[in-house]
Amino acid sequence: MDGASLAAEVIAGDRRALARAITLIESLRPDHRAEALRLGAAARASGRKALRIGLTGTPGVGKSTFIEALGLQLAAQGLKLAVLAVDPSSGRSGGSILGDKTRMERLARAPGVFIRPSPAQGALGGVARRTREVLVLVEAAGFDVVIVETVGVGQSETLVADLTDLFVLLIAPAGGDELQGVKRGIMERADMLLITKADGALREAAERTGADYASALRLVRRQAGDGPEGLQVHLVSALTGEGVQTAWEAMRELAVNREASGATARRRLTQAQAAFAFELREGLLSWAMQRPGLAEAVARQMADVGAGTVSPEVGAQLVLGILPDSH
Amino acid sequence: MDGASLAAEVIAGDRRALARAITLIESLRPDHRAEALRLGAAARASGRKALRIGLTGTPGVGKSTFIEALGLQLAAQGLKLAVLAVDPSSGRSGGSILGDKTRMERLARAPGVFIRPSPAQGALGGVARRTREVLVLVEAAGFDVVIVETVGVGQSETLVADLTDLFVLLIAPAGGDELQGVKRGIMERADMLLITKADGALREAAERTGADYASALRLVRRQAGDGPEGLQVHLVSALTGEGVQTAWEAMRELAVNREASGATARRRLTQAQAAFAFELREGLLSWAMQRPGLAEAVARQMADVGAGTVSPEVGAQLVLGILPDSH
Repeated sequence: MDGASLAAEVIAGDRRALARAITLIESLRPDHRAEALRLGAAARASGRKALRIGLTGTPGVGKSTFIEALGLQLAAQGLKLAVLAVDPSSGRSGGSILGDKTRMERLARAPGVFIRPSPAQGALGGVARRTREVLVLVEAAGFDVVIVETVGVGQSETLVADLTDLFVLLIAPAGGDELQGVKRGIMERADMLLITKADGALREAAERTGADYASALRLVRRQAGDGPEGLQVHLVSALTGEGVQTAWEAMRELAVNREASGATARRRLTQAQAAFAFELREGLLSWAMQRPGLAEAVARQMADVGAGTVSPEVGAQLVLGILPDSH
Repeated sequence: MDGASLAAEVIAGDRRALARAITLIESLRPDHRAEALRLGAAARASGRKALRIGLTGTPGVGKSTFIEALGLQLAAQGLKLAVLAVDPSSGRSGGSILGDKTRMERLARAPGVFIRPSPAQGALGGVARRTREVLVLVEAAGFDVVIVETVGVGQSETLVADLTDLFVLLIAPAGGDELQGVKRGIMERADMLLITKADGALREAAERTGADYASALRLVRRQAGDGPEGLQVHLVSALTGEGVQTAWEAMRELAVNREASGATARRRLTQAQAAFAFELREGLLSWAMQRPGLAEAVARQMADVGAGTVSPEVGAQLVLGILPDSH
């Protein structure tokens, strides 16, 4: 497969080419990697951008039904939507969160909608690397909105927050004492909270949950540039559709404001440079671990440092002393 | 100065030797570094441990007066207390947060108490490295409790949380809408919240603030092993002394429980290995940046990646290709 010509087909709007291109990006075969990088570079050169929305929530919160409800409204408005999943556990559990497309079958058939399940393999870092490149492909293909969904295994929410322009946290209605389960650090990354299932018997609980979080979050954070109200909390029902359009308008307004203020450009610049620094450090570590004796020295020092007999600084010095010209 | 014999004096309980030893650890002179590492290793070999308490809060919250009130009670109970400060801005602002010892002059004169101002120079990473070694020195000197205080510049609270067994956040009483100013990510790291100035005219506001935070934090987090009540919130008054002993007992109980469950040992192991991984990566990066042409390549790729013309992965590959045997 030729990466550059595949990119041209993707940019021309060929959906099958996009699916093939993503498969190439996700391939673990070393001989695919060079073509994948050429593909990514050609896609990047298109300069196209989409609104990247990250979406997370614990299992059962109703992510799929919300995405379907939102996606159908966006499609009806003529917007082109892609849905990607980041789920590093899918390889182990045997089932990707979006692998079973029947969960969003109406959305999958809607015009202008592209749904891609999670890559079925790989460590979290690897999944994030690939997803970053897949986002560029999807943008090159001319989508207006990309939703990156994660069920929140390991650090996947943080990775998704680091890949997107808006990070939205879905929370189910619950009684006061049951409210928990949101991982440390996730609430802090959220740009917006959506309380799901705000219909029927759960309507009242959803309102109370929304008010509780709105009040709690007023205390702990307020982000510059997002208006005096701080973090927004909205109620949505995928069943009745109530609140979905309002939530979308709030997301779009936040996106427009951040675009205008330059906040989104700064966020993307920061994300790209952080990813570069990460790749550089990881690559350097991989390179170093291939030097003779270095991996053994790391294991030895890691044990001594863990036991408290050697300081982290001395341990690192002892390892680095193995490198050429290190003195 | 001979590091090993200085360590012996520190372990024997000589306070002046401890002060000299800390100065050696904090020294930026390269020829001091080897002795400092010998000193650190000898101190580490003592195997002594203290309860390490991290303490932070925005300026004006009353950190110094609280530490003085708590410290005087600990000293009265015969406990040996050391107070260290982490304040990376002190070099720039010209004044360390503890440089002016008069702020804790009663505590400074109490028996068994050692107060050390912040190192007057250095980047945050450097300050944390030195503080980690200073903690080992202080433990070797036989202190029972070490308080590491920070005013919260840059990432200093995170560093202090990474250096200590318990991380305590001080919050001043305030009206509902004024409650903010706690940085993102700090609340999540706290093991305990203390509402200060719970006396006189502010008593009621302190109670309301405490209740607000207790209710808010019930929603967002609950840490395994800390009992069903989740994060504890206590009211303290440095003026009347009310609540200070209760807060101390809560800290001690939490420390005892975590010691018994092995949580503290795991936390220290994780901290040490994370610090080792950090030192290794930083040292590797420093080493690499000395290779011919590499720093220039990093600057070039950082610009291209920031502009979005090159992916982080390709940018890193282009840099790493400069290293020997990198293919």
